[in-house]
Amino acid sequence: MDDRTEIESLGEFGLIAKITEGIKLQQPTSLVGVGDDAAVIAASASANASADQVTNDRIVVTTDMLCEGVHFDLTYAPLKHLGYKAVVVNLSDICAMNATPTQITVGLAISNRFSVEAVEELYEGIRLACERYSVDLIGGDTTASASGLTLAITALGRAQDENITLRRGAEEGDLLVVSGELGSAYMGLQILEREKHVFKEAPGAQPDLSGFDELLERQLKPEARVDIVAELAKLKVQPKAMIDISDGLASEALHLAGAGLTQAEDGKGLGVRIYEDKIPMSEKMYDAAREFNLDPTLCALSGGEDYELLFVISQDQFDQIQNHPMFSVIGHFTADPSDRTLITRSGGEAELKAQGWDSLA
Amino acid sequence: MDDRTEIESLGEFGLIAKITEGIKLQQPTSLVGVGDDAAVIAASASANASADQVTNDRIVVTTDMLCEGVHFDLTYAPLKHLGYKAVVVNLSDICAMNATPTQITVGLAISNRFSVEAVEELYEGIRLACERYSVDLIGGDTTASASGLTLAITALGRAQDENITLRRGAEEGDLLVVSGELGSAYMGLQILEREKHVFKEAPGAQPDLSGFDELLERQLKPEARVDIVAELAKLKVQPKAMIDISDGLASEALHLAGAGLTQAEDGKGLGVRIYEDKIPMSEKMYDAAREFNLDPTLCALSGGEDYELLFVISQDQFDQIQNHPMFSVIGHFTADPSDRTLITRSGGEAELKAQGWDSLA
Repeated sequence: MDDRTEIESLGEFGLIAKITEGIKLQQPTSLVGVGDDAAVIAASASANASADQVTNDRIVVTTDMLCEGVHFDLTYAPLKHLGYKAVVVNLSDICAMNATPTQITVGLAISNRFSVEAVEELYEGIRLACERYSVDLIGGDTTASASGLTLAITALGRAQDENITLRRGAEEGDLLVVSGELGSAYMGLQILEREKHVFKEAPGAQPDLSGFDELLERQLKPEARVDIVAELAKLKVQPKAMIDISDGLASEALHLAGAGLTQAEDGKGLGVRIYEDKIPMSEKMYDAAREFNLDPTLCALSGGEDYELLFVISQDQFDQIQNHPMFSVIGHFTADPSDRTLITRSGGEAELKAQGWDSLA
Repeated sequence: MDDRTEIESLGEFGLIAKITEGIKLQQPTSLVGVGDDAAVIAASASANASADQVTNDRIVVTTDMLCEGVHFDLTYAPLKHLGYKAVVVNLSDICAMNATPTQITVGLAISNRFSVEAVEELYEGIRLACERYSVDLIGGDTTASASGLTLAITALGRAQDENITLRRGAEEGDLLVVSGELGSAYMGLQILEREKHVFKEAPGAQPDLSGFDELLERQLKPEARVDIVAELAKLKVQPKAMIDISDGLASEALHLAGAGLTQAEDGKGLGVRIYEDKIPMSEKMYDAAREFNLDPTLCALSGGEDYELLFVISQDQFDQIQNHPMFSVIGHFTADPSDRTLITRSGGEAELKAQGWDSLA
């Protein structure tokens, strides 16, 4: 009998590492391939362009798949919101490259359980997101599926070479900065899950969602932080590295640390220390977490789907960022890659763990 | 109760028309949107580039989704072949724009029915296709699905503005030209379906595939005609319009006719006349069709999945094409959009019907 390795034994990152191992880029325009929030290609085809036509224009490309029953549950995610969110999560990856999104393509596979009206509702959300972000829907594919709904969106964006931010770039002593507030999207999901459960037990019950609008909106209708990309340009702050928070703060911070520049021979990257009292959380999120008997800090560290931007600056840029209402400086990078530390409010230390969600694990 | 329109009442083209209705392109770099084999964007971001940096470089983008149980059947399509074919069908769309493919991204959703080894086999096919066509795999997404396997591939390619071919461009009197031979991929599928049926009836039976290698290869391992794009450039033949044959010759020819340039106010495009005796078919395909009691011409007209290129030239280019072994001149365009005619071997006339496969109908 053939050997069979279960995918969950590797998880998403392990599987991707295995299937992309040893890939070599052959095209002169392929500048950054698999492994970052988006790929980077040169806009000018250097083979054809004359020297003065080789510009610093870059095109960034990212793809995401959303599967019914894995990434979303149509019991409480309306199709219009799903369409909007599917676009936004891709635009967020473009923002994580410090680029501006410009175009998307949409692949849609649907079973005959869905009506034309349902598909129109989904596309209404997709088009709303396109309008909101001035992004063009330029192509796609619409097809039948044997069961369920799968959305595959590819987003393209633009940046100048000198502004592109990869995951790789942090150095010892650099600061870790995050936009906005964390944990709200995760709490929104908890509220929806609770009401779904109540509804299953007692189908006549009315969902009790009052007072949770902000949290529900963060879960059902997240936004991509194009405003942060614009603000960084305005402040003339060039992050040394950046990632968007889809899998939770801890997981993403460890990505930036692991990809950090180091002189050590082991190539294991840097350590990172995060201060609990600096992690930005909304009052609504904090209160809801308490109501659900959840630790608000854990929600922020591991909750995911915040789509905030997490980036790295050198210490000499601290003054430009420290009192800015859009940003929180939450930690710094250290030389020792085994240093993955949360400094608690009480001054104690806890290990930062990547408990981000992995659909394959 | 809400009105419910079944998707099959519209079919793929009807549904796409409905959901993309009224889309307006906002980005200056979005040159061609939904509705062709691929979208076209300007490589230079005109907003940032100086006048001498605005080049004719174009990037073309296309997306295709392949769903288990709809587009492929893993009983007889080995995963390696599936990976290869999934890339090729996208590269074929790039070729249909008269462009050269350069990069792909791969979205993969898989259920836990698949092992790591199965995913590796699929990617072996994807990587083989990338090597064969000098195309870079630059990104993607790998995720769990609730059931089955779905592949979403986006391909990027390059062309100069003056060489891009849209579906729109045919004029009255122009000639219709096709590369290669038609119908073989469809016959390959018939052979596989027959053997699957035999195997189901008598599981011990050995499949009888001898002598059908050519047809099976056309079905299981099709190729994208990058060589035709190169040959047209070498011959300095600029097609006025082009499309690739994924849904059968008749369907694609009617697309070119419908998108034809006309002075009539109804905007219904042109008519098209195809000569049965000019349709290129291989001897193997012809013989197999007879063995299966199928009309070879019908296989070529409606079979699909040939991934040959179908294009339009003006009559004054006839001499450059007529005796070229890669091309067959098979018909011409007429002024009357209701003229959709197959001129049979016996000199009779039959109506050309788009019986191309529609997963949603």
